[in-house]
Amino acid sequence: MKKVLAELLTIGDEILYGQIVDTNSQWMSVELNKVGISVIRKTTVGDVASEILTAFEEAEKRADIILITGGLGPTNDDLTKPLLAKYFNCELKINEEALQEVTEFFRSRGRELLEVNRQQAALPTACEKINNPNGTAPGMWFEKGEKVFMSMPGVPHEMKTMMSDSVIPKLLQTFKTPVIYHKVIRTIGLGESFLAEKISDWENALPNHIKLAYLPSLGEVKLRLTSFGDSLENLQAEVNDLTEKLNPRIGQYIFGYGDDPIEVMIGNTLREKKLTLSIAESCTGGYLSHLITSVPGSSDYFLGSMIPYSYEIKMRQLGVKPETLEKYGAVSEPTISEMASVVRARFNADIGVATSGIAGPGGATPDKPVGTVWIAYSDKYQTVTKKLQLSKDRMINIRMASVAVLNLIRLSLPK
Amino acid sequence: MKKVLAELLTIGDEILYGQIVDTNSQWMSVELNKVGISVIRKTTVGDVASEILTAFEEAEKRADIILITGGLGPTNDDLTKPLLAKYFNCELKINEEALQEVTEFFRSRGRELLEVNRQQAALPTACEKINNPNGTAPGMWFEKGEKVFMSMPGVPHEMKTMMSDSVIPKLLQTFKTPVIYHKVIRTIGLGESFLAEKISDWENALPNHIKLAYLPSLGEVKLRLTSFGDSLENLQAEVNDLTEKLNPRIGQYIFGYGDDPIEVMIGNTLREKKLTLSIAESCTGGYLSHLITSVPGSSDYFLGSMIPYSYEIKMRQLGVKPETLEKYGAVSEPTISEMASVVRARFNADIGVATSGIAGPGGATPDKPVGTVWIAYSDKYQTVTKKLQLSKDRMINIRMASVAVLNLIRLSLPK
Repeated sequence: MKKVLAELLTIGDEILYGQIVDTNSQWMSVELNKVGISVIRKTTVGDVASEILTAFEEAEKRADIILITGGLGPTNDDLTKPLLAKYFNCELKINEEALQEVTEFFRSRGRELLEVNRQQAALPTACEKINNPNGTAPGMWFEKGEKVFMSMPGVPHEMKTMMSDSVIPKLLQTFKTPVIYHKVIRTIGLGESFLAEKISDWENALPNHIKLAYLPSLGEVKLRLTSFGDSLENLQAEVNDLTEKLNPRIGQYIFGYGDDPIEVMIGNTLREKKLTLSIAESCTGGYLSHLITSVPGSSDYFLGSMIPYSYEIKMRQLGVKPETLEKYGAVSEPTISEMASVVRARFNADIGVATSGIAGPGGATPDKPVGTVWIAYSDKYQTVTKKLQLSKDRMINIRMASVAVLNLIRLSLPK
Repeated sequence: MKKVLAELLTIGDEILYGQIVDTNSQWMSVELNKVGISVIRKTTVGDVASEILTAFEEAEKRADIILITGGLGPTNDDLTKPLLAKYFNCELKINEEALQEVTEFFRSRGRELLEVNRQQAALPTACEKINNPNGTAPGMWFEKGEKVFMSMPGVPHEMKTMMSDSVIPKLLQTFKTPVIYHKVIRTIGLGESFLAEKISDWENALPNHIKLAYLPSLGEVKLRLTSFGDSLENLQAEVNDLTEKLNPRIGQYIFGYGDDPIEVMIGNTLREKKLTLSIAESCTGGYLSHLITSVPGSSDYFLGSMIPYSYEIKMRQLGVKPETLEKYGAVSEPTISEMASVVRARFNADIGVATSGIAGPGGATPDKPVGTVWIAYSDKYQTVTKKLQLSKDRMINIRMASVAVLNLIRLSLPK
């Protein structure tokens, strides 16, 4: 089968100046590869008409699908739309549906529709308008012979919704792509190279049409199996068979499969078991609670948190005994253990968890360097504590300590 | 003065698959722009010989400087070196200095030198070898007429050291570069199009050598002025003069200049004024506290938070009066006002702020749709409340409500 080739074209001076990192094109690459569309090139050009037009021409020669992001805002430096009109040899004209949508977008937010916003509804007449539920700049789909040009906003959440809801389904109707089956195995608690070592025999025995990728992020490693073939059923059966064989090797590190992060998996377990959760987080400063509450419906099992950032608050508001703090300090096993059980009692929750540590860059002592973090889990059967030695980087420590608590909940929940 | 133009060429299938985000090219863009070299294009191609050769040719037509990363490893899919030899019509030959270095590199780590590693010392004879103190693949500098091709490893810390220590100094010897001055103006509280309207006369009057860009993110818009010239002093004076003129137009929306986000700016103000902060956050679920505590040294002014996610906790732990909750509900002006003043009192802080709303997707009522959020600020002089009508998206609502509180603090702090 002939491969379907895509080129990603990003437009914007801010990327060439290095003021933002282009994360859009990575996300798009992943989504396109998932459905069997191969990305052959990524190009970024600035807000310069001649550069943009040349990029259109070059991309058209190479790829079947040209996905364009950026340059659609209402301001003067945004050139994509007039240049697409020029490239497709047509006019810009107010699109009535788009005008209604942008009017409604502003009305619903109680804001006035300015002339610049009205112009966002002007579209090249050669394009098909693609809905943008999260913003005011519609997407534009052009066909030229066998090729498709698709222009989208550069704002990540607008682009993502448009890609998932409209563009990818439409591309799959337009192009014949091979069958691809992906399975993502989510692991936590073991570094990439240790995982690789534990599964090297399994990895080396993978057949040629199945590829393995390691996707590490802070505190977690995803294993992605990608298989190509003609029959989805066969691919699924084969991949599931292979996945089974991972259990004896790394089963205790696998927390799930697919898109759901560990906070969703833990939320589902708590809801099923009808257990409630409370948090006392110090060094993670709200990030652990944020992970828990980023899950829709988390109010079913999450009662609340205390963030006792000062000593005083640890004692008076949370209720850690002054003696414990004085004798052992805030970053210690006795304190963390007390924080977890006290927050559980005060919030009348089934489970209490806690964090306390030196996130950095300040606050280190000779025996407690930056990256020293204590975490704890407490329920009516047990209190479990764990000491972590993380990095020198504040944000990495905050993220990794929070994920470590989620993993501690997973491992400690009553069976 | 003629601009010096650079193109960044990244080689590697892993980027086209979306397995890694290309952060190298952002770092390179920043460093090049700092020294007056304009990046006009970024291109990523896969490990495919024909694609790479075409990319060399195209880049040579456009740019003065072609900076290549990736494809220098010892494995079979690494093609950059043989293709550069072909492009510059020369042979690959073992470079004695490079061989010594790679031998020493392995010796010092107690590892055996394999034939594949020995081959890393083979370089195209047309290039000048550039030292790689952090790895085994040397950089390669080629000159062709007035143009420079420079090939570097894709491993970030190897590339960065090579760029800073060797490549940039050598580029500045080779090319005469203009002076560039950037200034970023940080605004909050007004959308991109409203800002554009308020400053359109000012924007239209900008001289040709000064460019303006709008960089919107959730809840904030950055304005970036970029100016080109011969004298840094003159550019700074001119840009600062222009910036001054923004004050009568949008002064109340400007919270700062440069890299610091609003949570840093507020932290600095609180520290200066010796004020302490406490938070009661419901619908933002910890994210607001996370923003505050992401700033190193935030324990100087941040005492702690309550996250009263359930009604019960709002009453019992935080201390909102049951009558208030029963009569007005959790998402109401009386409740938010009480949350802010109660958390301030309980934590014995100078300032209390609070959030309560419907983050979504569940929890809406006919008169309180998803995206309805109340925020409040309380100090000993006043309590200020504000109702927001945000989006349908949970994560956007969490982020925007948190940023709105930071802005409310900025606007409400005692003068």
